Amino acid sequence: MAVIEKTNVEMQAIAAKKAAKKLSLLTTEEKNEALMILANTLESEYQTILKANAQDLEAGKEKGYEEAFIDRLTLTKERIYDFADGLRQVAKLTDPTDEVLSSWTLDNGLKVEKVTVPLGVIGMIYEARPNVTVDATGLALKSGNAIVLKGGSSAITSNKAIVEVMHGALEQTKIPKEAVQFIASTDREATQQLFTMKEHIDVLIPRGGASLINAVVNNATVPVLETGVGNCHLYIDESADVNKALKILINAKTDRPAVCNAAETAIIHKVWFEQNLEQFVTACSENHITIHGDETVVKRIPGALKADEDDWSNEYLSLDIAVKVVNNIDEAIDHIETYGTKHSEAIITEDKSAATKFMKMVDASALYHNASTRFTDGGALGFGAEIGISTQKLHARGPMGLPALTTVKYLMSGDGQTR
Amino acid sequence: MAVIEKTNVEMQAIAAKKAAKKLSLLTTEEKNEALMILANTLESEYQTILKANAQDLEAGKEKGYEEAFIDRLTLTKERIYDFADGLRQVAKLTDPTDEVLSSWTLDNGLKVEKVTVPLGVIGMIYEARPNVTVDATGLALKSGNAIVLKGGSSAITSNKAIVEVMHGALEQTKIPKEAVQFIASTDREATQQLFTMKEHIDVLIPRGGASLINAVVNNATVPVLETGVGNCHLYIDESADVNKALKILINAKTDRPAVCNAAETAIIHKVWFEQNLEQFVTACSENHITIHGDETVVKRIPGALKADEDDWSNEYLSLDIAVKVVNNIDEAIDHIETYGTKHSEAIITEDKSAATKFMKMVDASALYHNASTRFTDGGALGFGAEIGISTQKLHARGPMGLPALTTVKYLMSGDGQTR
Repeated sequence: MAVIEKTNVEMQAIAAKKAAKKLSLLTTEEKNEALMILANTLESEYQTILKANAQDLEAGKEKGYEEAFIDRLTLTKERIYDFADGLRQVAKLTDPTDEVLSSWTLDNGLKVEKVTVPLGVIGMIYEARPNVTVDATGLALKSGNAIVLKGGSSAITSNKAIVEVMHGALEQTKIPKEAVQFIASTDREATQQLFTMKEHIDVLIPRGGASLINAVVNNATVPVLETGVGNCHLYIDESADVNKALKILINAKTDRPAVCNAAETAIIHKVWFEQNLEQFVTACSENHITIHGDETVVKRIPGALKADEDDWSNEYLSLDIAVKVVNNIDEAIDHIETYGTKHSEAIITEDKSAATKFMKMVDASALYHNASTRFTDGGALGFGAEIGISTQKLHARGPMGLPALTTVKYLMSGDGQTR
Repeated sequence: MAVIEKTNVEMQAIAAKKAAKKLSLLTTEEKNEALMILANTLESEYQTILKANAQDLEAGKEKGYEEAFIDRLTLTKERIYDFADGLRQVAKLTDPTDEVLSSWTLDNGLKVEKVTVPLGVIGMIYEARPNVTVDATGLALKSGNAIVLKGGSSAITSNKAIVEVMHGALEQTKIPKEAVQFIASTDREATQQLFTMKEHIDVLIPRGGASLINAVVNNATVPVLETGVGNCHLYIDESADVNKALKILINAKTDRPAVCNAAETAIIHKVWFEQNLEQFVTACSENHITIHGDETVVKRIPGALKADEDDWSNEYLSLDIAVKVVNNIDEAIDHIETYGTKHSEAIITEDKSAATKFMKMVDASALYHNASTRFTDGGALGFGAEIGISTQKLHARGPMGLPALTTVKYLMSGDGQTR
């Protein structure tokens, strides 16, 4: 065989795999202790991180990045202390590994146990936010997994500093520092190498915009946990209570418009629309919401913009909302089937059978009856922490907590059983 | 937008998706009744299927296919009756959908339920065996999923006849016949179209040889449940009981050498090897096993062939075995780490701590202590039926029963909750 030289990225993935094996043998206490030391060290060395962050910010301003982007990139002492607190929270969560999910004995006496084990090595590919560097590391280590981090180039100096601080901290723990690998290259090629390293990487988790996620999904042979895009709908049924409907609409649209669980389209039953038109328009205008509507909406709401295909298909991630008026719940379900991203969908109704139908028929990870789509979030649902929100159906769907970072082994013990 | 004409395959996938929605609303009783009608109809129309099968067999013989291949392709009245019995077994299994996996209430009163639901549409890509056409259909329908079947070209006439019979039967049931789609084209392109139909197909399950599986894994953007290749090892430790070891070795190697859970390599501790050399050689020769060994083995066993890289890497699927002598358990674990396919691995030992170490350290879906690797099978482990054996870590690992064909939904019920 020809000798093929290993790239740096491959060497890092191999080192991660080796470290993962050691990590998988540690006790819960040893892992928790390590997380606490990581947290303390991030706090005590926050100035090192801030110094590195200043370089990223300067470079970002020179490149003329938008203010919102610069804001997400900006670290402060408080934000770094929040990262540390996040790690302490993760330390408190139940260890998701070594859990016997089921066990039974065959007629021949063979004992079977199905137990949870770490996945092995997680490849995390993400964009600007440096908090992912800490959050994902904490969740990976707690669940006994090594992690290969590939962050966005705009945060590279900050991420590098964070990882250096974490490596220093890990030297005081039982976790080998090789369990946390950071791809320092900003080459696109470095990312692409991760896509096909099936031997060394067990799962890829992309977090960021649609183009990043699609690049990973379309090119990776390593299994992917797809996260993200949420084109979420709120269907206001004929019998919807007007106060609940408007309260939920305003919350789902305006609480944090840039996140994936924000509502992007309101589908409104024609009867409700006519009966509550004035209140609806007032609520939207008071909350600075721009309406893009179908023909009925444009006709009835002066100033509403005409919605086109893009309005129904894409996330605004802003204070814009698409509004469609329908004749019945079936039209609403069809619209969601066509344009939804299987993330979070809500119905507002006082009619229980309509709610049941909606929740049964709509194919999405999270369905809401009389509540805001904003609850699709590991923290809000009580998972303690999340590694992302899965929009695929395999392995994990919806908010992914620690159990999503495990797989199973079947352990069979016998005394000579054969078939 | 330019009008893009839909291909036949795409039309079929869309029809399947639509049928899946109807199917997901049926009760367990309605699905079971349909399975019983399918079973009865296969039996009553067995002659139609045999006639079609005769055409495939003739074509196969003309093309000079191997006898074993022709054998797998051959249907008989008995085999068809077995297919029908398989469907009746599936009817008896617990419905894996609509199960509330967990439920809780948030402090704000929002009720959360995590329930199992069908995946939607399963794309099954498989080689010769026509039994997969029936088995996979039964499991898909029972779990509320539609299925798109793409079988191997050598069995196409048989598969077509089976599907026609099943379609006729479905017309007497509540399950729309569009829930079972058969891709009748033998074009490679037809298969490739399935790889990227993320909108219509929820999961692809390839079953067959390594090249088929790799083609799917490397080219599909639809999530894949990878099945299959088993390069399984048997490690005979220093303290292994000689009777257990030889009994298990012979069973794992010779019971059904062509299946994925058969043993392909024996790794033997040097002390045990020297102490039990004669019995080992006798057992192998009595069972017509051909030994391919490392240097030590070739030196000590006259007639043993020299093993090379291929012997360690590949499945023989025959009465050949690779034999490696090691100094200790760590060398055995390293060898498995290098050459194993994470399918099934066994240790034979009377030393409990060695067994624990092996089961903890070896990364595979099924680990055995003093038992044959042949038990990695949905039937043998008591799952009732299996759609395949997953060799990946996400979603389902090891034998996949009905629950592997489901995903979850989070259902949230409130009275106006917002964040």
